[in-house]
Amino acid sequence: MIQNLIENIKKKDAPIVVGLDPMLSYIPDFILDEAFAAYGKNLAGAAEAIWQFNKGIIDAVYDLVPAVKPQIAMYEQFGIEGLRAFKRSCDYAKSKGLVIIGDVKRGDIGSTSEAYAVGHLGTVQIGRHAFSPFTEDFVTVNPYLGSDGVKPFIKICKEQNKGLFILVKTSNPSSGEFQDQLVDGRPLYEIVASKVAEWGQDHMGEDYSYVGAVVGATYPEMGAALRKIMPKNYILVPGYGAQGGQGKDLKPFFNEDGLGAIVNSSRGIICAYKKAPYSDTFGPADYADASRQAVLDMQEDLKQAYVK
Amino acid sequence: MIQNLIENIKKKDAPIVVGLDPMLSYIPDFILDEAFAAYGKNLAGAAEAIWQFNKGIIDAVYDLVPAVKPQIAMYEQFGIEGLRAFKRSCDYAKSKGLVIIGDVKRGDIGSTSEAYAVGHLGTVQIGRHAFSPFTEDFVTVNPYLGSDGVKPFIKICKEQNKGLFILVKTSNPSSGEFQDQLVDGRPLYEIVASKVAEWGQDHMGEDYSYVGAVVGATYPEMGAALRKIMPKNYILVPGYGAQGGQGKDLKPFFNEDGLGAIVNSSRGIICAYKKAPYSDTFGPADYADASRQAVLDMQEDLKQAYVK
Repeated sequence: MIQNLIENIKKKDAPIVVGLDPMLSYIPDFILDEAFAAYGKNLAGAAEAIWQFNKGIIDAVYDLVPAVKPQIAMYEQFGIEGLRAFKRSCDYAKSKGLVIIGDVKRGDIGSTSEAYAVGHLGTVQIGRHAFSPFTEDFVTVNPYLGSDGVKPFIKICKEQNKGLFILVKTSNPSSGEFQDQLVDGRPLYEIVASKVAEWGQDHMGEDYSYVGAVVGATYPEMGAALRKIMPKNYILVPGYGAQGGQGKDLKPFFNEDGLGAIVNSSRGIICAYKKAPYSDTFGPADYADASRQAVLDMQEDLKQAYVK
Repeated sequence: MIQNLIENIKKKDAPIVVGLDPMLSYIPDFILDEAFAAYGKNLAGAAEAIWQFNKGIIDAVYDLVPAVKPQIAMYEQFGIEGLRAFKRSCDYAKSKGLVIIGDVKRGDIGSTSEAYAVGHLGTVQIGRHAFSPFTEDFVTVNPYLGSDGVKPFIKICKEQNKGLFILVKTSNPSSGEFQDQLVDGRPLYEIVASKVAEWGQDHMGEDYSYVGAVVGATYPEMGAALRKIMPKNYILVPGYGAQGGQGKDLKPFFNEDGLGAIVNSSRGIICAYKKAPYSDTFGPADYADASRQAVLDMQEDLKQAYVK
């Protein structure tokens, strides 16, 4: 699947992942009204609106980008109905040829981590039949529990040709509270990165591992150090745009081959129609066209990071 | 809700939480057969079997214990249908007067953490109505992202009178890989514990905070140090029984008042009928009675830890 992701990035010349993190406040009224009219002003109605909103964005950007990253919290907050919209969005994006990165940040130990891996990336066995409950290609994983938490995910990834992105250095202001603590002069996130490099050797594609890392765009200087520690691990970079990162700052996340990183934008794309400069040209009725334009602009901007 | 938990612990004289972590292999054939006959040998059938299995255990132990802790991964692996069984189990346990600790180990940042908190502990607003998608009283939270990840949970806990248990030192063998790294001579888990104590001050009950910690039974010597750092934070102790911990080893987790800790057992209780000594007396048909006996034995064993 890492090969698939890389081929997709090369073909579209866009190391971009669109974060499908819908809030009800992002969704144009015409979608909300129709969904509530059909299903009621309730969890089912909200879930339908999210799905319709996502579908519009996927239709508008699938030929431009290699991947989408639905943030499961935004669906889980609407309970069972919301999770149904999560699955439907994943399945639809996959039918459009997109790679699905489930931003689930799960992490537990042993058979429990394996259960998450089975549910999101693999198949669960019931009698003689195997079922795929959710259908992501990659998931994000929290490393706080150590190898016991990560290896069951890698086991399932090897069986299913799937991949991971493990949190190393997150994009938020307080990420340093624990991640930057110095251990023998080295920040903890570098120790986690060394482990990611080690875990990654266990499941390699051609040039890159199926085990990647999450490193926030907001910390480019750390990106440079982490790129060296994890030369063969793809880096998923959140925090572009809305959280402050810009294309020219992202050079350190890429390798000499112009590969090795994929940059996420969520609000900056899916909510583009609400913000300048897009709000001058686009309104709620063409929110998806605004998203498409925001992707095109991001594609141009990112070239400063990886084109020689 | 921490008051509610403490009252429940005192009333039942049992600082015990039953981990509802069902695997299909734990479930007696008569339950599986009936569920598959009714719903098919599929995700819906598996979910029905899990729910019926849980119901039997809840009915057998609800008068003995203060709380249950469903591990959501074991439900999520069966997708939407599995999560429906999770919700149903939570709702039923709550109707029997039990406190629900959702072992979800979620953690993200800002509005995303808030979405998890809203979904599991709070209410989500749709138009003029508020809905409760899932209905836990406490959830477990992963601290790797720092305060940005935890504070949105605390915000919702304050609004809803709910609580948290934050991972400090987990019970698994590799938990030391990152958690034990020394920062200026102090292990990272102590630094996390100091933060838990600080966060906890923001949401206090009478003697204890609504913000607790997870510390594995497998590390009693660390439990003693952590008890001192977090005197007012309840400690949820996994790893009793199946993972190796015993009642007499758990003294360090309790305070002088005989309170301050609640010990989880999952397989040791829900799977008791499969293991000696219970397997001598109980079979699959009375798996729930075996669970009840295992709770009674655990209650006796734990007295070594907290009764003077």
